[in-house]
Amino acid sequence: MPHPSSPGEPALVALDWGTSSLRAWALDGGGAVLSATTSRDGLRAVGERAAADGTDPGHAFTQTLAALCDRLGAAGVPALACGMVGADGGWTTAGRLDLPVPAEARAFQPTAVPGASPVVSIVPGLKTAPDMTGACDVIRGEETQVLGALARLGNPSEASLILPGTHTKWLRVAGGEIVDFTTAMTGELHAALLEATILGDPVRRGGAEGAASAQGDADAFDSGVMHSLSHPGHPFAARLFSARTRYLSGELAAAGVSSYLSGLLIGDETAAMLPAALASGAPLALCADGPLGGLYQRALSAQGTQVQLLQYTALDGLRAVARAWGLLPIAVTTPANPFS
Amino acid sequence: MPHPSSPGEPALVALDWGTSSLRAWALDGGGAVLSATTSRDGLRAVGERAAADGTDPGHAFTQTLAALCDRLGAAGVPALACGMVGADGGWTTAGRLDLPVPAEARAFQPTAVPGASPVVSIVPGLKTAPDMTGACDVIRGEETQVLGALARLGNPSEASLILPGTHTKWLRVAGGEIVDFTTAMTGELHAALLEATILGDPVRRGGAEGAASAQGDADAFDSGVMHSLSHPGHPFAARLFSARTRYLSGELAAAGVSSYLSGLLIGDETAAMLPAALASGAPLALCADGPLGGLYQRALSAQGTQVQLLQYTALDGLRAVARAWGLLPIAVTTPANPFS
Repeated sequence: MPHPSSPGEPALVALDWGTSSLRAWALDGGGAVLSATTSRDGLRAVGERAAADGTDPGHAFTQTLAALCDRLGAAGVPALACGMVGADGGWTTAGRLDLPVPAEARAFQPTAVPGASPVVSIVPGLKTAPDMTGACDVIRGEETQVLGALARLGNPSEASLILPGTHTKWLRVAGGEIVDFTTAMTGELHAALLEATILGDPVRRGGAEGAASAQGDADAFDSGVMHSLSHPGHPFAARLFSARTRYLSGELAAAGVSSYLSGLLIGDETAAMLPAALASGAPLALCADGPLGGLYQRALSAQGTQVQLLQYTALDGLRAVARAWGLLPIAVTTPANPFS
Repeated sequence: MPHPSSPGEPALVALDWGTSSLRAWALDGGGAVLSATTSRDGLRAVGERAAADGTDPGHAFTQTLAALCDRLGAAGVPALACGMVGADGGWTTAGRLDLPVPAEARAFQPTAVPGASPVVSIVPGLKTAPDMTGACDVIRGEETQVLGALARLGNPSEASLILPGTHTKWLRVAGGEIVDFTTAMTGELHAALLEATILGDPVRRGGAEGAASAQGDADAFDSGVMHSLSHPGHPFAARLFSARTRYLSGELAAAGVSSYLSGLLIGDETAAMLPAALASGAPLALCADGPLGGLYQRALSAQGTQVQLLQYTALDGLRAVARAWGLLPIAVTTPANPFS
């Protein structure tokens, strides 16, 4: 077997291991991707398998990873993971760093899973300072996207990052440190409104008024954004109700209700968060892999703000941590910055 | 049988007939209550009974009302109803009056249910003028509470009324007319958050951290109100998330989560609506029968505003419409206003 620090030979398996999905890449010693895979083997599936087999979860994680490494052609190499796999109830609790934290991969020492062979390490999460009530906000997984995004942006000492998702994070880097973040549960609220309120009735009934179209979705989304932007003084629960009255008046088709609600929610969120994010004068960037990135760009654009969209930053973050902690042995020559 | 226009003899059955409940009063010709009852025979139950029996809904409504009148000792007298019984899908569609509408019972001509004997009439609802998108907001049932509240307040020509519920209404009377109202789906949003988001997890798991107490509930409610009032620039979906971080930090007990969320939502709603409601200088009153009235009073009080709480205004509204339309034949002598 060739030495793993040879280019083209697997040296590390990088894992973005969340609750419902698992993305994995086999990297050579320089960080180049040799193979990649995505599966539904998130924490939930692994936990269910352990319960069904009557084995302990640690065994199920080990087996899942071994099978995955086989598929990637990277059996027997170390692994570095980020995401809920490092939460309480994951494989091993990887802890959380208290803010402020230097905005560099070297500050994120991975936690080794006890007894795992080959070595499996997990990137720690982040925790804000307690607010006046003693409550802290926490991040698990997004910290790695942040490290990837910062690497992609050339490691600026000031930046504002938006990480859309079920729980969207707005994170601020200042003076070379990650200083704060805020969570908006926009994605989860959207799902709950569709599932459990009268607003979702037309959607749950199957949208007899016509199938969704890309243009119809975009128009409904824009209407929702504009409604939020033009009713800043209205209670949130009143702005929401416009999804009902517009549906009843025929102005909003059943097929557009979900997009309209997305627009309302993302409109409210971005309008509230944008002033502080822009006030710092720092570059603002979006980290999103799926269609949410485009929706946030659209909502921000309606407010006169163009932002850079960075996709697949988790892999870059895992690479950065792996390099900082000696898990990718081949030195990478960074091209000189032509502007410096 | 004595003449129905004799005091003490039933002359009218007044009905507040909603989706899930039915409240009914037998009144004498002067409007005095002879007997009263509450049942679960709302529209949903009546509809299910009709479906189960294979009869048409009109027949089920007739039978339900006849049995109710028997229980009230008021068989064979006319009835006047308000609520969803007059909606599409109710017994008979009672229509909706377009705003502005004179703020007096005479403007609310009831619609007779075709073929019903004795006569059954239903109070019409209200509809706002279309907004710029053509969407209208609607009321069905609350219009009768409004008429009752206005009668209770001495029929002022200016007033702001709050009608808390699943869909809370804020309604404005100006120049003797009902000119506008806004719907905030605060109650429904509260239920959806508990049912379908991570915020409700501690509640759904049964609150192992201790049972709810009245003082604990009040404190948690106040914390929620204060969080909304002290974070006006935060996205709604971020303020919501404080219910999660405070629960995780131990500052909010599982038993307090529901009250905390009520406080957050009612805090947001009242903070947004209050400036316009107070700007008119008109008297502000709350119409609520259950515990919601006290919660709105508490949230308004935290903002320095004391409001009058009017309970059981639906019956007063039904009486006002019945008098205006000749369904209560005995003239009532109103005591002279000592201040006029």
